[in-house]
Amino acid sequence: MALTRRDLALAGLISPLIAAASNARANGASDSAPDLPVHDMSGMPPGWMGSEKIAILIYPEFTALDALGPHYMFTNLMGATTMIVAKTHDPVTSDAGLVLTPSASFDECPEDLDILCVPGGSRGTLAAMRDDVTLRFLKSRGGRARYVTSVCTGSLLLGAAGLLDGYRATSHWTARALLPEFGAIPVDARVVRDRNRFTGAGVTAGLDLGLTLVGALRDRAYAEAVQLMAEYAPQPPFDAGTPQTAPPEATALLEGMMTDFLTEATKVGRDAFIRARAL
Amino acid sequence: MALTRRDLALAGLISPLIAAASNARANGASDSAPDLPVHDMSGMPPGWMGSEKIAILIYPEFTALDALGPHYMFTNLMGATTMIVAKTHDPVTSDAGLVLTPSASFDECPEDLDILCVPGGSRGTLAAMRDDVTLRFLKSRGGRARYVTSVCTGSLLLGAAGLLDGYRATSHWTARALLPEFGAIPVDARVVRDRNRFTGAGVTAGLDLGLTLVGALRDRAYAEAVQLMAEYAPQPPFDAGTPQTAPPEATALLEGMMTDFLTEATKVGRDAFIRARAL
Repeated sequence: MALTRRDLALAGLISPLIAAASNARANGASDSAPDLPVHDMSGMPPGWMGSEKIAILIYPEFTALDALGPHYMFTNLMGATTMIVAKTHDPVTSDAGLVLTPSASFDECPEDLDILCVPGGSRGTLAAMRDDVTLRFLKSRGGRARYVTSVCTGSLLLGAAGLLDGYRATSHWTARALLPEFGAIPVDARVVRDRNRFTGAGVTAGLDLGLTLVGALRDRAYAEAVQLMAEYAPQPPFDAGTPQTAPPEATALLEGMMTDFLTEATKVGRDAFIRARAL
Repeated sequence: MALTRRDLALAGLISPLIAAASNARANGASDSAPDLPVHDMSGMPPGWMGSEKIAILIYPEFTALDALGPHYMFTNLMGATTMIVAKTHDPVTSDAGLVLTPSASFDECPEDLDILCVPGGSRGTLAAMRDDVTLRFLKSRGGRARYVTSVCTGSLLLGAAGLLDGYRATSHWTARALLPEFGAIPVDARVVRDRNRFTGAGVTAGLDLGLTLVGALRDRAYAEAVQLMAEYAPQPPFDAGTPQTAPPEATALLEGMMTDFLTEATKVGRDAFIRARAL
């Protein structure tokens, strides 16, 4: 379920129609078109309808949940347009085999975004760092966006594009120590805000990041309504979500599995960070 | 990031190769194929590799995050195959405009599943209840699956197919009161297990549901490693995730928005529940 039912959940796609219907209502028209029911928004605070342009980058082998947590929150922003942006319109396969069709290519993505959001991954994130077209896209949109955001190792990609130089930031706990390669100051926190950079920790931190941004773009009452619609009152069945609370064996296992990735990410990231300056 | 990096995160798709590589390693072979690195799993408990068949239903205007929380958790089950199943192979658009390509059609979905998982939605969930092909698919796979599961209003769809008759269950908080229409006993809890039925509350409860199932299918240590990879130590920026903690205005707003849906769902659900018996 989404905050705004289909009509309003899809507000980003149909905002002109909603605006027209709202105007019609304000002008005394009896109702909107019968196939597009619009709820009575007359009691809605004026600041609750927006017109933000939001782009979530996807790339081959990205981690889908990194993107989908924020996507849920953003698409509950009435009036906003949330695009899934990739290099081309070709379907993109996530690291877990999910196939998504982008809604906009790099070329079609507006130059001035309210939010640029970059999900992480492992091998796919390295490939994205090696790709100058992706780095150029990030540098161009990230240099102008109102908020530049990431989830998980998406911050390595932001960093590689030069967008975290001098900023405090976070990443997946296994990858946070790499941030200084990009001039960033690593912070052990779930969501880190430094000026207009919002970075989230691993995977599920995207929910907290997304909801934080909803609060920043609207107000607390709006964000609370979105949280209630998402029934976001988490009850993890175990207490192993951080290396501080997880059994040492789990931490050691994942650190071991990540060794190769981190070695490669350091090398690939350094190269990308230098190349990106000239892009 | 996923627990198992691409190679193991995709274990469901490449388990024969992993098994072959593991065998080769056990037989003294030096390594797996160079384009498919397999980590040293020699220290892995024997029960950690599985071969489950998991199907997540999607349908037009489903809520993507309902499906993607469990999807993340399930795709970290090494050796398991997680399919995104829809009526046909045509791309399916979520209630928030996300376009996913199914990996299997109803006809291709194995008859004996380890997990059947059904996400919710609002208008799309009503349309799915009206569709006898979908009800027949749910009845057929749900009647044989090892675990029959849902997130959010997905439980209404399970209920309409007759799969919750006599079971304790939950749903999105706004929709829980409808469960008796399907013979189910509503329970106010994040994840409700009754025999082999696992139902989750609204949207984000899919993360808790998915992780609970990972624990049920493997063991606690495995589930804790998945939780740590997901960095699932949530810190919602507000405390409005339930009607008990949210501001009364937010609760009233959403209850008002859901009135039409619930009236329609009661009618459509009753009809479906009766029709499904004869399917």
